Amino acid sequence: MTDSKRKNPESLTEGQVPKAVVSRLSLYLRELQHVLRDGHETTSSTQLGARLGFTDAQVRKDLAYFGQFGYPGIGYRCEELILAIRRILGTDHDWPVAIVGTGNLGRALLGYKGFGNQGFRIAAAFDVDHAKVGERIEDIPVYQMDELDNVVRANRIRLGMIAVPASAAQIVADLLADAGIEGIVNFAPVTITIPKRVRMIGVDLAIELEQLAFAVVNQSQNT
Amino acid sequence: MTDSKRKNPESLTEGQVPKAVVSRLSLYLRELQHVLRDGHETTSSTQLGARLGFTDAQVRKDLAYFGQFGYPGIGYRCEELILAIRRILGTDHDWPVAIVGTGNLGRALLGYKGFGNQGFRIAAAFDVDHAKVGERIEDIPVYQMDELDNVVRANRIRLGMIAVPASAAQIVADLLADAGIEGIVNFAPVTITIPKRVRMIGVDLAIELEQLAFAVVNQSQNT
Repeated sequence: MTDSKRKNPESLTEGQVPKAVVSRLSLYLRELQHVLRDGHETTSSTQLGARLGFTDAQVRKDLAYFGQFGYPGIGYRCEELILAIRRILGTDHDWPVAIVGTGNLGRALLGYKGFGNQGFRIAAAFDVDHAKVGERIEDIPVYQMDELDNVVRANRIRLGMIAVPASAAQIVADLLADAGIEGIVNFAPVTITIPKRVRMIGVDLAIELEQLAFAVVNQSQNT
Repeated sequence: MTDSKRKNPESLTEGQVPKAVVSRLSLYLRELQHVLRDGHETTSSTQLGARLGFTDAQVRKDLAYFGQFGYPGIGYRCEELILAIRRILGTDHDWPVAIVGTGNLGRALLGYKGFGNQGFRIAAAFDVDHAKVGERIEDIPVYQMDELDNVVRANRIRLGMIAVPASAAQIVADLLADAGIEGIVNFAPVTITIPKRVRMIGVDLAIELEQLAFAVVNQSQNT
């Protein structure tokens, strides 16, 4: 059993690509999608880095972990690099996702518009509340907890999001792991323990505020 | 005007402390609180790092940016280091926070238990829906948007969270900036522009899933 895997920008993934590089891939992907939406077919490492606050060298170094993507005199072809990054991240194909808990947070996740266009499809929701079972939220069916195993396997769901109260998070994590789920995003503000084969990311919303507080305080001191 | 400030683990804050170090401070803080709750009054850089996947050298190096905290033969005194980190982050005092939008995400944030014990107090919520105004959600009053300026100033609110649909996020950011808000956490999946004096962190929930997908795919390839 391992402890909750938190974000760790310095540690290496199995393939020896630093996690910070993988997390920047997500940012490059967003930026490339943005550039493409703005009608530009190509971009450069300078341009890509500028909006994100990275140097062009950083962008090139990060991408070099995975191959050679730029063209001399042209730069990066947006569509091509988008597809390449999605292939690296594994999001060039559809990932059905399960959400456990249909309280406010669960409902917010069910309605979140940012998942669909990045390759994630919420396939099923689960709740202990029998009143909610059978309902459809955002057109996604809500099942009862004892159907979790069957529904996860039938829909080949590999990722799960935990949006239940802290007190129920460990039980839910165990059920997801038992159902063969390979990755969990835990939104409950509690540390949970899972089998080593399951990957977990804990989202602690207070950390965002904390980092913001530091930025605000430091800015005030410097002006 | 600057673009949305995204998480950038490599760039430096104004005080030349790498952002990655500041983000690890939040993780050390959580871990210290955990160790203390478990009944231990002291801990070591090895122990602190182990659960987070960092080396002891990393932990010591990070903390050394801010001072000398360990005692020979004892290690770190948890309570003392917790207070020191909160002082560094600026969360040793109370931060009143405003939430704009009381849909599912706004309600989830209003009910989120993880803010209170890290120094953040949701002081006010705002919504365009007049039916919700005057209501209290999780005992927090809901105001109409045209009261934002007054309420923010009267309550000395410095941080705001945007939990409105993407289409309304920019207008809300402008209103928050005009009201003197110094930091914004934007949950809307859209890039927004704010005056340079306002700090912003954009939370893109799909990024967590993407990073998880990468971890899952890479693990599968290695087994």
